[in-house]
Amino acid sequence: MAEFSLIEKYLSRVTGQCEGLELGIGDDCALWQPPAGKQLALSMDTLNLDVHFLACSPAHSIGHKALAVNLSDLAAMGAQPVWCSLALSLPDADELWLAEFCRGFAELAKQSGIALIGGDTTSGPLSITVQVAGLIEPGKALRRSNALAGDLICISDRLGEAACGLDMLLKPLVTDIKQAKPFIKCLEYPNPQLQLGQYLSERAAGHACLDLSDGLASDLAHICRASKVVAEVDLEHFSGEHLPKNLTQQQAYQKQLAGGDDYQLCFTLNASELAAVQRQFPQVQVIGKMRQLASHEVTPHIEWLKNGQAVALQLKGFEHFSK
Amino acid sequence: MAEFSLIEKYLSRVTGQCEGLELGIGDDCALWQPPAGKQLALSMDTLNLDVHFLACSPAHSIGHKALAVNLSDLAAMGAQPVWCSLALSLPDADELWLAEFCRGFAELAKQSGIALIGGDTTSGPLSITVQVAGLIEPGKALRRSNALAGDLICISDRLGEAACGLDMLLKPLVTDIKQAKPFIKCLEYPNPQLQLGQYLSERAAGHACLDLSDGLASDLAHICRASKVVAEVDLEHFSGEHLPKNLTQQQAYQKQLAGGDDYQLCFTLNASELAAVQRQFPQVQVIGKMRQLASHEVTPHIEWLKNGQAVALQLKGFEHFSK
Repeated sequence: MAEFSLIEKYLSRVTGQCEGLELGIGDDCALWQPPAGKQLALSMDTLNLDVHFLACSPAHSIGHKALAVNLSDLAAMGAQPVWCSLALSLPDADELWLAEFCRGFAELAKQSGIALIGGDTTSGPLSITVQVAGLIEPGKALRRSNALAGDLICISDRLGEAACGLDMLLKPLVTDIKQAKPFIKCLEYPNPQLQLGQYLSERAAGHACLDLSDGLASDLAHICRASKVVAEVDLEHFSGEHLPKNLTQQQAYQKQLAGGDDYQLCFTLNASELAAVQRQFPQVQVIGKMRQLASHEVTPHIEWLKNGQAVALQLKGFEHFSK
Repeated sequence: MAEFSLIEKYLSRVTGQCEGLELGIGDDCALWQPPAGKQLALSMDTLNLDVHFLACSPAHSIGHKALAVNLSDLAAMGAQPVWCSLALSLPDADELWLAEFCRGFAELAKQSGIALIGGDTTSGPLSITVQVAGLIEPGKALRRSNALAGDLICISDRLGEAACGLDMLLKPLVTDIKQAKPFIKCLEYPNPQLQLGQYLSERAAGHACLDLSDGLASDLAHICRASKVVAEVDLEHFSGEHLPKNLTQQQAYQKQLAGGDDYQLCFTLNASELAAVQRQFPQVQVIGKMRQLASHEVTPHIEWLKNGQAVALQLKGFEHFSK
């Protein structure tokens, strides 16, 4: 089957429309007229086989996740999705796989109101890159550098389930399938927090924000550095009751604080905004507070607290190329 | 070396500025304010190892080409480059390779006035995806569907050198290195025809246009189909004098008409525009003419002419997944 007809057949089902789109897939470029007065929020993320997903995961979930992790970046700025493009490298033209992948991608695209306007399908090891664009009012983006000393630190929902799901996928022989299902679902079907991000941005309720892709310990540290503050995080919020019962407390910390792939938002706000945010988004939890660097401190960082006392936590992180 | 510092170190040298860029690399999204009244032309292309380039090619050339093939899509619409993002999958953190890749990418970015505003660096088989955006006046894009019967068919420069270069790279033992150099350079350093594309679009001199990535036979057929016309191409323009002397005429046709990777433009215009275009761009050649479908013809197609007579040409094309 020729590349052109492959693209035509499956991606044309994904497309959809966005305002201002004059020309979609099929020419050298798409043509799009941006709306007056808005800024574009732009992000690009790649998923590779055996790095970001496993061969055993359904193609439908890979299509979902490839778009979801990108939408999550838009959510973290408070932007409204508008268009995306998709680069798909496939080792062979497996039509069944492609159909399912496109179905997963298209369902989330429709649900989040984003149009696929272009892309590329090439032969190569399985790899997916998505570019997303979102709209936002100038000055309203939730930047990492916007946290203030005194801000509460919040997360959009509990953490660690995706990391548990990955463990279960990697150890199929010792996994209770029924118990594993919801955790694997968290891993394979992350839910980008678009509504929350837009709420925080539009009402100016949130200050700094990012999405948790690499784990809280590593991601929250980005906010600390960009905003030059210290994050005091209270470990009592991470008992891990929602995680499998066989985890030790240390393992539960590891999953929640250093496990990746949650794609929840971590954000800061003034305490006066909390009640209004939680009325709209009851899953939102406070996990700590930002403070100024003390006079003897040089480096912005995270402080883990137990009963008000700073404790040392040994967390294993994950970084590409960190061999 | 951690992913973050890798990106910081090399990609930050590539960046540069574009008008309206409020926030570049380093947050969940870049933030960019599009200029009022312009359209965006958007394209995304992937290069994979052993499909689009060979391991023996210098990293500098791969960086150049990854951006060049995308800029070529902007050229084909007549758009002016504004920003790009880069997704780079690397099997390991080879700093020397990365430094050279970024140098090749950055040099072309600077030369063409495009800013790198974001991207992703991941672990995986070597693969590069670039998204580009260009600006264009509404209604001025050189679409494939704009060719008219009676239009002259032009190419921006002679063809086939890149395909010869690929042959030479694949057969190093029988290749005369000195003779091969300019051909391999055409393959590894395509030169996106941005000025010509913008000229054709701004002065409304060009009608349909596309860039020749897969070969004239396959690409020009896209214009025929989109514009519902027949292309009469005169083979006398393809004697192949500029190609290696040991090629037969049939081999020279193959390289020029079905060889990929030239990244020249193929476009149509009214004959009255030709002289002005050639004054600015003396390499531009006429290769044929568009005509209406005859009453007995159903399908838009290309007709190869020799001394005014249609001839059958056997050309081998290349399409991904066409196993």
